[in-house]
Amino acid sequence: MNWAVVMAGGYGERFWPRSRRKQPKQLLPIVGDKTMIQQTVERVRPLVSDARIVVVTNQEQAALVRKQLPRVKHIIAEPMGRNTAPAIGVATAVIGKQDPNAVMAVLPADSYIKDTEGYRRVVGDALKLAAARDVLVTIGIKPTGPQTGYGYIQVGEELSNKSATKFWKARRFVEKPDRKTAEEFVSSGDYRWNAGMFVWSYRAVAEAFRQYQPVLWDACERIQKSAGTKTFARVLAREYPKMEKIAVDYAIMEKAKNVIVANGDFDWDDVGDWPAIGRHYEKDAGGNVARGEFVEIDSANCIVLSDKKHLVATVGVRDLVIVHTDDATLICHKDQAQKVRDVVKKLAAEKKYKRLL
Amino acid sequence: MNWAVVMAGGYGERFWPRSRRKQPKQLLPIVGDKTMIQQTVERVRPLVSDARIVVVTNQEQAALVRKQLPRVKHIIAEPMGRNTAPAIGVATAVIGKQDPNAVMAVLPADSYIKDTEGYRRVVGDALKLAAARDVLVTIGIKPTGPQTGYGYIQVGEELSNKSATKFWKARRFVEKPDRKTAEEFVSSGDYRWNAGMFVWSYRAVAEAFRQYQPVLWDACERIQKSAGTKTFARVLAREYPKMEKIAVDYAIMEKAKNVIVANGDFDWDDVGDWPAIGRHYEKDAGGNVARGEFVEIDSANCIVLSDKKHLVATVGVRDLVIVHTDDATLICHKDQAQKVRDVVKKLAAEKKYKRLL
Repeated sequence: MNWAVVMAGGYGERFWPRSRRKQPKQLLPIVGDKTMIQQTVERVRPLVSDARIVVVTNQEQAALVRKQLPRVKHIIAEPMGRNTAPAIGVATAVIGKQDPNAVMAVLPADSYIKDTEGYRRVVGDALKLAAARDVLVTIGIKPTGPQTGYGYIQVGEELSNKSATKFWKARRFVEKPDRKTAEEFVSSGDYRWNAGMFVWSYRAVAEAFRQYQPVLWDACERIQKSAGTKTFARVLAREYPKMEKIAVDYAIMEKAKNVIVANGDFDWDDVGDWPAIGRHYEKDAGGNVARGEFVEIDSANCIVLSDKKHLVATVGVRDLVIVHTDDATLICHKDQAQKVRDVVKKLAAEKKYKRLL
Repeated sequence: MNWAVVMAGGYGERFWPRSRRKQPKQLLPIVGDKTMIQQTVERVRPLVSDARIVVVTNQEQAALVRKQLPRVKHIIAEPMGRNTAPAIGVATAVIGKQDPNAVMAVLPADSYIKDTEGYRRVVGDALKLAAARDVLVTIGIKPTGPQTGYGYIQVGEELSNKSATKFWKARRFVEKPDRKTAEEFVSSGDYRWNAGMFVWSYRAVAEAFRQYQPVLWDACERIQKSAGTKTFARVLAREYPKMEKIAVDYAIMEKAKNVIVANGDFDWDDVGDWPAIGRHYEKDAGGNVARGEFVEIDSANCIVLSDKKHLVATVGVRDLVIVHTDDATLICHKDQAQKVRDVVKKLAAEKKYKRLL
């Protein structure tokens, strides 16, 4: 049967002050009217029934995940952040106990994708491929530009396959290249972005974990034994802290010989920071994007997020991100959006600002 | 007896969103802990008893003036704005009915002055001079730079006078000069800023009004007859709309032959816009001035006004004025602060923003 593992463990500090520890980016409608995790679940729903959707989140966010996804029953709350390999390992183990023939799509909860039909075709074709062969599929997004913030995958020989989606053997993974290299990658046509979307059978991924991460997988198997019983939370709390903090790309994908790249020819945006949302909303004549009440005089290229009860007015400013919330307002130059995390760090260092985290 | 007329009729649009029609600049603690009008009254109090302080304001603001100045009994609410000559004319008429020997200081409600002792000396000496001679005294502020936004007064022959304050005959008034002219004025040492602070006897100013603004003064005398009676408000409402909208400088000061300039050798700031408040608060290492909760990363030369319940965080910005209030936030480039008025105009044009005026 088809399963989905929705990865929802991040804290989304780059989206402060809208994102908070208990309500990070994936639990907010950063782009669109529904929250990112709701969009993710709705996007995959025709391929996977609600009973077979597993969300991996953390204990601070679990209550809100349940509220936002009332039909999803499998919610695993990590005792602490341990990167993607342990999170996927535990979800895989839990699924495998219930359905050893499971085929699963691992999906980040916070991507924005408009071409839902294209997405469903690719994920659906990948699920079929993973059901038929012992492969680890990664969905490679066709680059739209030489971004240096993403990992790239070089594709090799194309698979002979009757599906509408193209598949290739993966040749190599390259972490965040420099600008020049990224430009070469894009113009070659041989590279795809690693979007953290994977498709595989329980059997194939369990075998890969066993082979490349035996210690981690042993812990997953101990957790697996308790899955569906009263001791699950206790065993998870005991085993999880001991697991290595490691990304699944590095833990198994870059080591495995049976990695396949699916041609992700749909639009995809990981909406990595505030300026990214400017790509998804209509601009006024001055290039400003606004949500909520906004009045401007001689202002250009700003992103302004307020609400119906609060007016943001700008005069003579440009290239700013302005985000208003009830208890905090951010004013950030668009080119410095990565430093929003430093604000969160400063707040964390002062007791009086704890309420704003 | 000494009287004071406190001029508090403005709407302070340049201080939006803190200033609103019902609570403009003079009724806010724009600089300092007390409101500007409270500071003005406290500053003049040793010279004038509370019973002889007259505040001229408008009907929208009268209630708040009463609340902020519970000891002040004479509050005249203009039926509508009519510039300074009618406002001063009416206050003069009201005072003259009660005390034909009155000597009065006319003071704007929204100046900021730190050297209270120097101020009291100059105003006190001017009151004494005005009691002794039929003159119209204007307190001329020693320029601190070639500001082009102020009116200048050239001084002439010095008066022989035993007071600590110097007085000169006024030679001429010059409205807002260009930069080069202003520089010449400042370097000559012969010019003072016109700060809208006047001192004169009832007799002298009534005579000047009678001579130079006979129509306006006729109306003032009709209002005077009703002063202290039940018909005052009705007569004021009938006469005031007909009065000419004219500034007292133009109406009488520039025409009169008996104008004296007092040497205002105390600090004075009319705090004309948001950037002006940067002059009165301590700056952090980056040149930022903040009131209320503020956290910054790589930000410089900003003025940030929030409160204890709301945090403003800035990242990578400079030369901004940021003013947060419960229902509106302003983000304005320091060099464009005069355009804050355009925001207020835009708001006035849209029904849904009326609540923000």
